[in-house]
Amino acid sequence: MIVRKTLDIEDFDVREAYGVKADGVTIRWISEKRLGGPEYMHNFALRYFVIKPEGFMPKHKHPWEQEVIMTKGRVLVTSAGTKREVGPGDVVYIPADEEHEFKNVGEEPVEFYCVIGCVGEGENCIGLEEL
Amino acid sequence: MIVRKTLDIEDFDVREAYGVKADGVTIRWISEKRLGGPEYMHNFALRYFVIKPEGFMPKHKHPWEQEVIMTKGRVLVTSAGTKREVGPGDVVYIPADEEHEFKNVGEEPVEFYCVIGCVGEGENCIGLEEL
Repeated sequence: MIVRKTLDIEDFDVREAYGVKADGVTIRWISEKRLGGPEYMHNFALRYFVIKPEGFMPKHKHPWEQEVIMTKGRVLVTSAGTKREVGPGDVVYIPADEEHEFKNVGEEPVEFYCVIGCVGEGENCIGLEEL
Repeated sequence: MIVRKTLDIEDFDVREAYGVKADGVTIRWISEKRLGGPEYMHNFALRYFVIKPEGFMPKHKHPWEQEVIMTKGRVLVTSAGTKREVGPGDVVYIPADEEHEFKNVGEEPVEFYCVIGCVGEGENCIGLEEL
């Protein structure tokens, strides 16, 4: 087994790392394609996001599903035009190819885990950290 | 998108539901193969476990990977003979076919999310709740 401590993992600013118009969003890649050998199978990857107050992740979409496990704060999720405000204990499941965005609508940071399905050779499941 | 509230989902006693020698362990299936259409892809399923104080999940293994996201309590994980005590913020990644077990070693309930990869036709990713 591999044990990782979420907050010990290097965080990257999403705007800088990916060149998208996010504001105040960081990503930590907790598990990904390069972590562990083929016995880890890598059907999915796990990331951890923090969104500062007033921060947001702009509209985007991708050809794989994702699932957000809320742990802190209040976030407004808009997906395919539907809006839902969610908080700790809520889980948001977003299908492939659906345009979605996140906006911190609370006064504290938003924190969530995000699982994505790995597609093709898992090119979408490669993280930013040097492993 | 589909939004699910973890604690609103029906929980099942693992011993009763699966006939294993678990004690004080419940499972909630948060997302699984039957939830949402093919656009959800179902490369993975998400479950939520609660283990009461002194409760345990006995040694078992399965031909898919799993990842545990700890949210509450202290649990001793033994996997392939290696022992690690983990708590909130820790993530435990267990490869396919590795024998593992969980034991609550704290005074409060252990709570964690658990992601599994779906294999074959996703037979291992079908939950217990009537959908």
